[in-house]
Amino acid sequence: MISVEEARAYILRYFKPLETEYVSPDEALDRILSEDIVAPLAVPPHDNSAMDGYAVRAQDIAGASAQNPIRLNVVADLAAGYMSDVAVTTGAAIRIMTGAPLPPGADTVVRFEETSEAVSQKATGKGNPFVEILSAPKRGDNVRRAGEDVRAGEIILPKGSKLRPPEIGLLASVGCARVPVHRQPRVAILATGDELAEVDEPLAPGKIRSSNEYANAAAVIKAGGIPIRLGIARDNLEDLTRKIRAGIDAGADLFITSAGVSVGDYDIVKDVLNREGAMHFWQVNMKPGKPLAFGLIGAMPLLGLPGNPVSAIISFETFARPAILTMLGRTKFARPYVTAMLQDRAENNAGRRNYIRVHVARNDAGEYIATTTGEQGSGILTSLSRANGLLEMPPDVLAYKPGERVKITMLDYPEEN
Amino acid sequence: MISVEEARAYILRYFKPLETEYVSPDEALDRILSEDIVAPLAVPPHDNSAMDGYAVRAQDIAGASAQNPIRLNVVADLAAGYMSDVAVTTGAAIRIMTGAPLPPGADTVVRFEETSEAVSQKATGKGNPFVEILSAPKRGDNVRRAGEDVRAGEIILPKGSKLRPPEIGLLASVGCARVPVHRQPRVAILATGDELAEVDEPLAPGKIRSSNEYANAAAVIKAGGIPIRLGIARDNLEDLTRKIRAGIDAGADLFITSAGVSVGDYDIVKDVLNREGAMHFWQVNMKPGKPLAFGLIGAMPLLGLPGNPVSAIISFETFARPAILTMLGRTKFARPYVTAMLQDRAENNAGRRNYIRVHVARNDAGEYIATTTGEQGSGILTSLSRANGLLEMPPDVLAYKPGERVKITMLDYPEEN
Repeated sequence: MISVEEARAYILRYFKPLETEYVSPDEALDRILSEDIVAPLAVPPHDNSAMDGYAVRAQDIAGASAQNPIRLNVVADLAAGYMSDVAVTTGAAIRIMTGAPLPPGADTVVRFEETSEAVSQKATGKGNPFVEILSAPKRGDNVRRAGEDVRAGEIILPKGSKLRPPEIGLLASVGCARVPVHRQPRVAILATGDELAEVDEPLAPGKIRSSNEYANAAAVIKAGGIPIRLGIARDNLEDLTRKIRAGIDAGADLFITSAGVSVGDYDIVKDVLNREGAMHFWQVNMKPGKPLAFGLIGAMPLLGLPGNPVSAIISFETFARPAILTMLGRTKFARPYVTAMLQDRAENNAGRRNYIRVHVARNDAGEYIATTTGEQGSGILTSLSRANGLLEMPPDVLAYKPGERVKITMLDYPEEN
Repeated sequence: MISVEEARAYILRYFKPLETEYVSPDEALDRILSEDIVAPLAVPPHDNSAMDGYAVRAQDIAGASAQNPIRLNVVADLAAGYMSDVAVTTGAAIRIMTGAPLPPGADTVVRFEETSEAVSQKATGKGNPFVEILSAPKRGDNVRRAGEDVRAGEIILPKGSKLRPPEIGLLASVGCARVPVHRQPRVAILATGDELAEVDEPLAPGKIRSSNEYANAAAVIKAGGIPIRLGIARDNLEDLTRKIRAGIDAGADLFITSAGVSVGDYDIVKDVLNREGAMHFWQVNMKPGKPLAFGLIGAMPLLGLPGNPVSAIISFETFARPAILTMLGRTKFARPYVTAMLQDRAENNAGRRNYIRVHVARNDAGEYIATTTGEQGSGILTSLSRANGLLEMPPDVLAYKPGERVKITMLDYPEEN
């Protein structure tokens, strides 16, 4: 048996970030930047007004108040999007809207509310030849400075950044129309087994539904990859060989099979994989899971997951997800964790690293509590479905007792009320 | 001014879960079930072997050991996917592969490792007329019972369940080829303003890049909706009216505009919205944010976000995201939170609910620490980009001091090493 860490380290040596592709900011959500993004210009590009009001010279309105209004001549009216071709000279003001570039000569903006326009809640002063200023804001008040968000030439987002909605907005704000990101990995998915029936076909005696290919495809999407479904290969040389070669022809970056990689003479999956590529067949010190295949078919890495549905999902989580994240350009793979008080006994009688399915929620005091979700067999998908976290028990830990504080790896985050 | 809670409660009254649509398990990831899913059959459908080995009658092998091997006649060889047409009678065994239905008469499986096939690591006993049993497992050992994961008629996933990879696998395992989920909301997005330039056009003096529509579209996708981009409407009656009507014609479930909803006579957005629908123009007691419009244009709810980029994103998060999640069938909207030690001073001088941008990470002791990410102005997108969480300061809290333990709403989860 090899350890989870040994198997993962071996596998990850075969993966690196994929090449750069350029996408629109519309398509860049959740992708990883493959290059630093340098701002070609400042944001905002001009000093501009933070308020609707009057652009003035601070020295002209020193001492202004409701009792001591200062009257200025309104020489222009300026909307956002337009440069003023008139300057603010001594005794003058320009009526200005939020976002409009500050006119030459002005250094301060007085809000409507602090002028004679305040009589109405709605701004109605347009066209008046003068305005009375009723307060004396400091020089620079209500002015947003050019470059206050981004300076020209600044790296706004370093290589490796994950692009969330704020980053998408930031990229658009500096005019980055072609965003350099790592290509998404294409992941071929093949189910194997004579016992498998398609999800929508009649279920003949002795058969079960093919479910791993659906769970694997969903997990590929969730990790950021693009699944390529190859369907089911039957347990015979011809069908297996044909479908594995189809995966190679599909130009995938990773090939994932399920079932057929443990001891058993009907598992001709191993024979075909050995014939088509250079494979390892491991027993990994984990539960659920244990049988795992990894190697190269031509130049394409192939990961053979076990056939039991929970084993397949936990093995995907442990080995395939880090490989996909690596190809996307991510350097950290660990899921978030919480420390929770265990509500019931968790046992490890396998002598392997045991991943116990738990549900984590907060109690009334706001502390996390973790409850095991029932039968922990490798075929019991319902108990994984009820779980949002995994309690990892090292091979030498036989039990955790109720009341123990344990670290839970979260697959999903606990819902808050 | 109205409170965040009042505005949100008012808005959410206009939304309910959208109607059911039926999708393949392939398309169901992250969707919300609109109906309970009842299993039409048990999973697994038959008692079956959990191991490669020999199906036997426990009473025939009582007392078997390496010193006292018990010889059985091998009467058949059974692969997964096939029913045995031969029964296991007294003194007989059937060689059986993992997953194969337990043959009639058998009640127990003895693993290869505990039989005379153990001499080879690879199973080589096929075709032998007899086998020696070298241990005496209990009756029922190495047998997976029919229905141990799912019983026929059981609700495997209740209405309201979010479909993650395990649930997708579970749906496939019970043959649910058409999954009932709430339809994804279509969200029309319109930017407004004469100052806005497209991301890829030359930037004329006085103009800024249109970025809110990109951030909003990304946030719609992230929340589970489908964005419909309507582009930029200029600040004139004709263009605004035309583009707002285009949003109605697009059959959106929610219409989101940005900018033009605060006081200011160039903001003819308000005039057009009032003419086309029944709108409220609020000042919400929050920062960033404050101006917010909400109402109906025909039968379609319209949410008018402020124009400053950070105000737009925080207002989307506060009002649009819960509306989208409601339409998807979610009943809980709260982001996860953590309790973190604040590293630096956070001030609230606005008398409004202040959303301070912070970055949360663990220190060496595994505790969360929160650091403010710089300038907190409503136009400073870079400081939101550096943040993974928000520290909400109530209107009456003037400051949090370094070292205080504060609750942080997480937009993203902190990365673990």
